[in-house]
Amino acid sequence: MIAYWNPLHAGHAPAHEIFRGDKVACFETPARADFVLSALQGAGHELREPDQDGASALAQIHGDRYLDFLRTAWSQWLSLDPQNEQRQPFPSVWPVRSLRSDIEPVNFVARLGLYSMDNGSPLAHGTWAAAREGVDVAASAAHAVAQGARAAFCVSRPPGHHAGRDFMGGYCFLNNAAIAAQTLRNLEFERVAVLDVDYHHGNGTQSIFYERSDVFFASIHGDPLTEYPFYLGYADETGEGEGAGCNLNLPLPAGSSVAAWFEALEIACKRLGKWGATALVVSLGLDTFEGDPISHFALTAGDFVRLGERLARLGLPTVFVLEGGYAAAELGHNALCVVNGFEAVAGAA
Amino acid sequence: MIAYWNPLHAGHAPAHEIFRGDKVACFETPARADFVLSALQGAGHELREPDQDGASALAQIHGDRYLDFLRTAWSQWLSLDPQNEQRQPFPSVWPVRSLRSDIEPVNFVARLGLYSMDNGSPLAHGTWAAAREGVDVAASAAHAVAQGARAAFCVSRPPGHHAGRDFMGGYCFLNNAAIAAQTLRNLEFERVAVLDVDYHHGNGTQSIFYERSDVFFASIHGDPLTEYPFYLGYADETGEGEGAGCNLNLPLPAGSSVAAWFEALEIACKRLGKWGATALVVSLGLDTFEGDPISHFALTAGDFVRLGERLARLGLPTVFVLEGGYAAAELGHNALCVVNGFEAVAGAA
Repeated sequence: MIAYWNPLHAGHAPAHEIFRGDKVACFETPARADFVLSALQGAGHELREPDQDGASALAQIHGDRYLDFLRTAWSQWLSLDPQNEQRQPFPSVWPVRSLRSDIEPVNFVARLGLYSMDNGSPLAHGTWAAAREGVDVAASAAHAVAQGARAAFCVSRPPGHHAGRDFMGGYCFLNNAAIAAQTLRNLEFERVAVLDVDYHHGNGTQSIFYERSDVFFASIHGDPLTEYPFYLGYADETGEGEGAGCNLNLPLPAGSSVAAWFEALEIACKRLGKWGATALVVSLGLDTFEGDPISHFALTAGDFVRLGERLARLGLPTVFVLEGGYAAAELGHNALCVVNGFEAVAGAA
Repeated sequence: MIAYWNPLHAGHAPAHEIFRGDKVACFETPARADFVLSALQGAGHELREPDQDGASALAQIHGDRYLDFLRTAWSQWLSLDPQNEQRQPFPSVWPVRSLRSDIEPVNFVARLGLYSMDNGSPLAHGTWAAAREGVDVAASAAHAVAQGARAAFCVSRPPGHHAGRDFMGGYCFLNNAAIAAQTLRNLEFERVAVLDVDYHHGNGTQSIFYERSDVFFASIHGDPLTEYPFYLGYADETGEGEGAGCNLNLPLPAGSSVAAWFEALEIACKRLGKWGATALVVSLGLDTFEGDPISHFALTAGDFVRLGERLARLGLPTVFVLEGGYAAAELGHNALCVVNGFEAVAGAA
């Protein structure tokens, strides 16, 4: 399978995130992508740098004001104090209900809060460059399948599925899966499905497409009553307006069995087929793995092979987009298992 | 002037707040109230413990679900881990736009985020008891003026004006000023004005009364473009629905002169008079003081006398509610200056 990688990803390497009020080392590290790249390369898959500019899809998926902020956030942070080079900015206040999101404050930390859903998306010097290059990675993979590849894999980092139209969250800044789906739409795939199999609900992707009838979003994830992102991903969210009926959430309690997970996968796959998807984007979180340090499903490497096989049987041009997965050392092998399973059914591209 | 104090306030003494991502000692300390109590007592003012139950006004101002959470938050926190006695909970994710506020997650930190606008309202063992007693303090002061006192002073702590119907924020948990105003309404003052002179906009109070025509909210504060709470307090917020025209924001740039501040005060006072207020609640933040460590106006002790004088000339039954002010050692004297100015015009109660 063709795999697009992001040569700038390692520039996004914040030192700390906030966990229970304390600064701790980040879970979302450059090593994650490196393990996946090594595994794919070691198995003989072709690695490519991005060869398409995702600018037009980017402008369709994210708001101008948010993009302007994110592009300049690090330089704004440094302009406040040259010593900020050694520090990380964290938001501290958020525009929840009764507060306004329509005015952009001048205060930097307030702007950071305006464009965040949590304090779990630490910025670093290379964040914008890495995230923006990731957009080109997603666009390139979409172009590859539009040009006939059976599938393409995006070794995306930072991940994207928690990022909404105008906010970052959960280690995500720009929504790679949404960019891939939009690019497929722009290339005249008329009905694009996004299937999110990350342990955490892809709230950003859902919200971006929630009122659209041309992109179906389906997700299997830990029940948000107990699992991040908590405030979206419930079964009663089925789309609105033109998008009514184009959203499917299959939350499963933390600790659910592998059998339950594959039952949900079957429901999602059948629904996407019935809906008439003509192309597929898979938000491939691998934090459903039994060894993941922050999640509570129990898939094994063999189960990831089975996942790849099932996805291939959908018979759709498919873009895989890497999302979460924090058992970094096993991440490469698990990603490879999905690819192997897919190709065993689909045939090597 | 009769001053009601909160015998349980010192039980709310969290060790840390989060400031720029780091844990630092709290700015909002028990010593703040103690300095005000000493100053008032030293000048011969009568200190009273609360003698009224504010339960009915509390139920009118805050939502049941939020109150249930706040009442039990500390015991829930301890139930997660007995060692949490030595730790403080901080929220880490918030339901901003596109995320839901209508479902209460099971996860404790997610519930804390659901009921917060920031990570600046640290909980401690005695937070609920202190905040709930503060409700009785506010209700007692309102009863005192209803029974004929010209004015009464609430030595409120924790403060309240950032707390909305169903969220905490900015050191505030229950909105003492709103409780006082609601109690006055319940006692058949038909038109109650709340004048907020804290350096920071009283977003909670504004939002609580924003659609009501029986309570006018006016505020003089640092421009939210640069000052907390950032997402509310702009001049174009004038009330909605039945409350249209019953909200007046007078934001002033950080660093504004004392003259500009008193011009704004004059505008607010005239407007409240014209509106026909029959009782007044003053959200008395003293962080407009020139020596305040986190604010940027420059009022002196003499200016606080002048403020008290001007408020007395409104000729209304008046409840003072202490809000912010972080130059703790000067807080007592500055509060006393307001009281002295008021009584010089109104005559001692």
